[in-house]
Amino acid sequence: MMNYLMIDKIIKNTLKEDVTSEDITTNSIVPHNARATADLIAKEEGMLAGLHVFERVFELLGDVQVDFMKSEGDLVHPGEKIAILNGNARNILTGERTALNLMQRLSGIATLTKKYMDQLVGTKAKLVDTRKTTPGLRVLEKYAVKIGGGHNHRFNLSDGILIKDNHIGAAGGITQAINLARNNTSFVNKIEVEVENLEMLNEAIEAGADIIMLDNMSVEMMEQAVQIVGNKSITEASGNVNLGTIGAIARTGVDFISVGSITHSVGVLDISMKNMQIIK
Amino acid sequence: MMNYLMIDKIIKNTLKEDVTSEDITTNSIVPHNARATADLIAKEEGMLAGLHVFERVFELLGDVQVDFMKSEGDLVHPGEKIAILNGNARNILTGERTALNLMQRLSGIATLTKKYMDQLVGTKAKLVDTRKTTPGLRVLEKYAVKIGGGHNHRFNLSDGILIKDNHIGAAGGITQAINLARNNTSFVNKIEVEVENLEMLNEAIEAGADIIMLDNMSVEMMEQAVQIVGNKSITEASGNVNLGTIGAIARTGVDFISVGSITHSVGVLDISMKNMQIIK
Amino acid sequence: MMNYLMIDKIIKNTLKEDVTSEDITTNSIVPHNARATADLIAKEEGMLAGLHVFERVFELLGDVQVDFMKSEGDLVHPGEKIAILNGNARNILTGERTALNLMQRLSGIATLTKKYMDQLVGTKAKLVDTRKTTPGLRVLEKYAVKIGGGHNHRFNLSDGILIKDNHIGAAGGITQAINLARNNTSFVNKIEVEVENLEMLNEAIEAGADIIMLDNMSVEMMEQAVQIVGNKSITEASGNVNLGTIGAIARTGVDFISVGSITHSVGVLDISMKNMQIIK
Amino acid sequence: MMNYLMIDKIIKNTLKEDVTSEDITTNSIVPHNARATADLIAKEEGMLAGLHVFERVFELLGDVQVDFMKSEGDLVHPGEKIAILNGNARNILTGERTALNLMQRLSGIATLTKKYMDQLVGTKAKLVDTRKTTPGLRVLEKYAVKIGGGHNHRFNLSDGILIKDNHIGAAGGITQAINLARNNTSFVNKIEVEVENLEMLNEAIEAGADIIMLDNMSVEMMEQAVQIVGNKSITEASGNVNLGTIGAIARTGVDFISVGSITHSVGVLDISMKNMQIIK
Amino acid sequence: MMNYLMIDKIIKNTLKEDVTSEDITTNSIVPHNARATADLIAKEEGMLAGLHVFERVFELLGDVQVDFMKSEGDLVHPGEKIAILNGNARNILTGERTALNLMQRLSGIATLTKKYMDQLVGTKAKLVDTRKTTPGLRVLEKYAVKIGGGHNHRFNLSDGILIKDNHIGAAGGITQAINLARNNTSFVNKIEVEVENLEMLNEAIEAGADIIMLDNMSVEMMEQAVQIVGNKSITEASGNVNLGTIGAIARTGVDFISVGSITHSVGVLDISMKNMQIIK
Amino acid sequence: MMNYLMIDKIIKNTLKEDVTSEDITTNSIVPHNARATADLIAKEEGMLAGLHVFERVFELLGDVQVDFMKSEGDLVHPGEKIAILNGNARNILTGERTALNLMQRLSGIATLTKKYMDQLVGTKAKLVDTRKTTPGLRVLEKYAVKIGGGHNHRFNLSDGILIKDNHIGAAGGITQAINLARNNTSFVNKIEVEVENLEMLNEAIEAGADIIMLDNMSVEMMEQAVQIVGNKSITEASGNVNLGTIGAIARTGVDFISVGSITHSVGVLDISMKNMQIIK
Repeated sequence: MMNYLMIDKIIKNTLKEDVTSEDITTNSIVPHNARATADLIAKEEGMLAGLHVFERVFELLGDVQVDFMKSEGDLVHPGEKIAILNGNARNILTGERTALNLMQRLSGIATLTKKYMDQLVGTKAKLVDTRKTTPGLRVLEKYAVKIGGGHNHRFNLSDGILIKDNHIGAAGGITQAINLARNNTSFVNKIEVEVENLEMLNEAIEAGADIIMLDNMSVEMMEQAVQIVGNKSITEASGNVNLGTIGAIARTGVDFISVGSITHSVGVLDISMKNMQIIK
Repeated sequence: MMNYLMIDKIIKNTLKEDVTSEDITTNSIVPHNARATADLIAKEEGMLAGLHVFERVFELLGDVQVDFMKSEGDLVHPGEKIAILNGNARNILTGERTALNLMQRLSGIATLTKKYMDQLVGTKAKLVDTRKTTPGLRVLEKYAVKIGGGHNHRFNLSDGILIKDNHIGAAGGITQAINLARNNTSFVNKIEVEVENLEMLNEAIEAGADIIMLDNMSVEMMEQAVQIVGNKSITEASGNVNLGTIGAIARTGVDFISVGSITHSVGVLDISMKNMQIIK
Repeated sequence: MMNYLMIDKIIKNTLKEDVTSEDITTNSIVPHNARATADLIAKEEGMLAGLHVFERVFELLGDVQVDFMKSEGDLVHPGEKIAILNGNARNILTGERTALNLMQRLSGIATLTKKYMDQLVGTKAKLVDTRKTTPGLRVLEKYAVKIGGGHNHRFNLSDGILIKDNHIGAAGGITQAINLARNNTSFVNKIEVEVENLEMLNEAIEAGADIIMLDNMSVEMMEQAVQIVGNKSITEASGNVNLGTIGAIARTGVDFISVGSITHSVGVLDISMKNMQIIK
Repeated sequence: MMNYLMIDKIIKNTLKEDVTSEDITTNSIVPHNARATADLIAKEEGMLAGLHVFERVFELLGDVQVDFMKSEGDLVHPGEKIAILNGNARNILTGERTALNLMQRLSGIATLTKKYMDQLVGTKAKLVDTRKTTPGLRVLEKYAVKIGGGHNHRFNLSDGILIKDNHIGAAGGITQAINLARNNTSFVNKIEVEVENLEMLNEAIEAGADIIMLDNMSVEMMEQAVQIVGNKSITEASGNVNLGTIGAIARTGVDFISVGSITHSVGVLDISMKNMQIIK
Repeated sequence: MMNYLMIDKIIKNTLKEDVTSEDITTNSIVPHNARATADLIAKEEGMLAGLHVFERVFELLGDVQVDFMKSEGDLVHPGEKIAILNGNARNILTGERTALNLMQRLSGIATLTKKYMDQLVGTKAKLVDTRKTTPGLRVLEKYAVKIGGGHNHRFNLSDGILIKDNHIGAAGGITQAINLARNNTSFVNKIEVEVENLEMLNEAIEAGADIIMLDNMSVEMMEQAVQIVGNKSITEASGNVNLGTIGAIARTGVDFISVGSITHSVGVLDISMKNMQIIK
Repeated sequence: MMNYLMIDKIIKNTLKEDVTSEDITTNSIVPHNARATADLIAKEEGMLAGLHVFERVFELLGDVQVDFMKSEGDLVHPGEKIAILNGNARNILTGERTALNLMQRLSGIATLTKKYMDQLVGTKAKLVDTRKTTPGLRVLEKYAVKIGGGHNHRFNLSDGILIKDNHIGAAGGITQAINLARNNTSFVNKIEVEVENLEMLNEAIEAGADIIMLDNMSVEMMEQAVQIVGNKSITEASGNVNLGTIGAIARTGVDFISVGSITHSVGVLDISMKNMQIIK
């Protein structure tokens, strides 16, 4: 799945945020060698993501086994059992919130992504994410988008070229900006330019942009834009995309549609740890 | 405000996530000594939080001045100018997304908290947050709750005692759990117990709980519970709290109401950097 | 016991302090695959603390087994065997000083705490620690205090409220300080105030302080103070506490007595690794 | 003085240990822009060390100026003013304990070292420290020993050769151990061997040891040993050294005497922050 | 230039590697407040790179000013003065080796890159680097390649697609591999495939590879390959490229030529700090 | 061999440099549970060093077994098989470059060191390294020098004394510098002084230098110097040492010869991972 070298750092960080000395409630009440089982239960309909992150929290705390009834990407219904935990009672209680906070957020992203995907059925458009991710969690959140059926845009400022209005202004025009990027960056990157109207679009095509972002265009203008571009470059729609508008945007024939809210404004999927039994 | 030793670590982490080598677009197009101004504009109605976090991103990148027109906690309307940035053009562009991702999230939390607060007018109930925060950002998110008018519950597992059903089960009863916590934790902490019905409530009062969490109770049962407790301990309502239900819950006379969604399922406040002008 | 995520960081740090490249003496003389046994011997009378920290040093270095003859909190006499080490000879030699430096210090704290505890027999007073701990080792040192029979005061500035003279001065009075703390901090914390005379004491009681620290009072004044407080709040004696004075202080009826020297001025317990045998 | 790259890491670590979210007492009571002065006062007779570490804590917190009346290594008497602090009131209060915990410990080490030094007057012996330092603070503690007039032994296992009984056992004899060390370590290091009797001593001299540690010898045997060694190598006395015995040991003519207790069992020097005045 | 957040980490790491406690020679001999000047002198012909890294070492140590007579990318001759240092004498001496080790290596890379570039004059081929960089220094080394006139290939495994023989084997063929990469990676990346003969080449073109790496081909085969490709994709020559062969390879008409040895087997440029004068 | 606490940090750092999110090529093409074997093949004649570092990369990635046909320090010929890898196909591909970059560099150093060693046959001179190592890799590179038959000079500025011209200038003369170093550093270090002519040499001998570095002397002067020194101290030749001159230098009778280029200007040893077979 994901590189443990990275995930572990996020998980350890989160555990240290939640346990600066020790779990004082648990350690004062539960004997250090008590053993327990507990169930992981879905309390809401949605798609699961981050099962191995949940499991990894307990691997890092130690001595807790997680057996899953469900798989990454599965749809769950309220009341369905996702997993059974079995092991050291203190570690189950201490790790519960950290593990849930991570997995609930990733499942929330997958679930919302899936809802957007459902609106794209019958079109060729693909959903992509943005850099509007939660600080510190990008590697996990972009992973969750893929679980939900979406695709990833560039990971960060270092691995993709996206020429925006400010870059164009600084360069003195679209053509100049594209030429500067072509000459001064690695040849392995495609060059994407953001355009706001058809005039800019034509200049971008002329200058050889690999990808053209149609930013904040009306559906009508976007339809024209897609026609003009033809197969001369890849098109990406951006701006004002929500569950109500994405269908119409997709039907313009655009190749990709980027949606920031699938990572920046997502609710967690309600999942709960229940039925804990001390088995001594 | 907040301790820079902590905030800086979060900001540097976020910058490194977004810039693993360099901002290839910006550095290929914008001269390294170009200077620029830009405006920070609200695109949505809401409450601002995290102005100094926004500013700190640019202090850490260097050579960018941020002059604010608004203050922490101010309400903004779409189109209002929040700040003017002035400085090295590359750093303005490279830091934009990191600074916005942080400030938009904090402002989103303050805005949502404020909406809940508005429902509490005329009651004595206070809104408190939970540990359902975004992994890695707790110190920032709990701060934003306070900007929005809310109060903080315990910060983490090490600095507050909250005896939940699983602890009670492990101890063999409420009284035993409270006694264990009282004997085995620092005397500087209050002891909070979660109860689900009136029988548990009575045992908790009897055992001397400082705070009693009324978990997932109907409004009717909660009213009874508040009456029973009187001033023998502090009451906290928890579970199924949303903007539609919080008013009725508050009117039961409960002291505190905890709401997870103000941190775990919050949309960002739409804020944008606009009107960038290359000067020089 | 303690959270390995924290202990491991302390241990790795300490090992790196002692081994910046390699243990040049050991590695030049002892073959890399030599195996050895060695005994851990008490050279002084005292109480053991930190056995698992000692063991963890060798787990992190690898390939050394530690079998204990004694348990955490046991009293030992000079010459008694505490444990037998068995494993890679290089790692036993390289880890020896780090493991001993940690365990000897923790055992020194437990031993000194125990001496104070012995003076409290027959009184209801409990011994508590302070924040005067060794920089970087607080989590370990507060643990050792508990092994020695003491209790923990707040862990740090973030998880307990203690209003001191300077806070009172800044607020303009005890009542104002307590009210500010009550309004601006989490309701899960008790509020403690430091008072130096009976006038301040009365104001603190009036203002509803949960805990009152009787600071640097004579035994006579403290007796009066305890009488005045009755069961209206918890009392803590502080200042000029040593093995000679603690008994009289305890007999005033105070609830808690805090002692900085059990962590800030403690001698290590003399423990030694002996009888190493290369068993090839 | 000391390398800030290292000191800063220790200080930041210590601050984070004491402030996991914020100083809740101070921040609830003292306005964020309040300014104050305070005095740093000696409460005990002793020698100062670590003034710049104290100052650095406040530099890292920011906006607090420390003006010293005393210098590193000065002797102070109870009641003497060491410094005046002036700046942000919150930072003065938040940094107080961290700054004092560090400086009091270093001053305690310098003070105790000085007491040992006083016993060496009139002899040629020099006092040296050991690796029995507080985990994580070695660089600071060895510095404090020098302020107190002592000298440093090797810093760690990587930068000095000290062949102990276990190494001799593993090598099959002193001569073999010395030869292995000579062949397998860098030629820039001197070779030190620990001997327990005169037979071992003679073998060590024969094998060309640069430094010979006379371990746990009686004063009589040590006198003989020093005579036998003459100027063929450097001698170091070790074991059972305390303030009562060090004079006699020094008069045997030994070159160096190592004392673990100046770092492992030292009391802090009592220093206090007093007379805080909120100004403005 | 480069992001200080990254460079600083490398520099601090390197300083800590060279100074684990303090610079014992310098600190024992040079007074802590001594000031000095020194010259930075080229001892060999070559191209300079990393001037600001050299300067940054001293900024991080503090109190040393570096005034440059030369600029990044300048050619220097033996004996030419590059810069004058002026400041704290201890810091000049302590930082000397770290600063030189970094700058000499970067200048060595720029110098060697320049030599390869000289062989490309009159052709359209561009020189690119590889991932065969020194562990931990990639961001600096790829920067130095650009100073020398070269271009950068992908930065790492996460920001460029390069399908090698093993990937083709795993996928069951070139077409399958390209299709998998196209479907499962971000659309912002170009797809590069490594081919070893003309048959593979044709399949790669057919499958729509954006870039085709001609791996270890003879100059004759490469000429044919370039003809076959035409402008259907970008070509990159790889394997067995050295100063003797690169000219012929370039004349095949290939677009890019990648050379590992400009980072993996480069000699440092000889630069020295001379004429240090203690002033005052 | 080497301390894993250190090596692991270097390896993790290097892996994170090469994989900032994931290996996008491999993960898009190779199933996550595919298994493979591959051969590690020498492509050049040389000496192997760093086998366990190579292996450790895959231990840290997980689920890849490395079985070696060769041992540390073995000489290999082009085409010889060094090891067989067996395990998770993705991890083999993702770790390949990191593992090779490390091992090829270490083997390059061992190979070059060996070439120098061959020139010393028949003389008593020993080869030593310098501090001119690659930033961040010193612990590995000095280890590789030993594998190649060389010896280590001091590890860093903190563990060896080397008085250079600038120190002499600051002290006001060789004698003064040596005396300052003797008085102000630990007695466990030898004192080395750099001299450039016979006059300085005589002063250094007189002042009791333990080691004298004969810097940039002609072979003739060095012969005289060695005669003058006799067995009064250890001699080290430095400056202008290369494969052509080292033999003559060694025959002057000097004890040690230091060579910077074995670490600062070394080519990697060509080693390659070949014959990867997906075994599903």
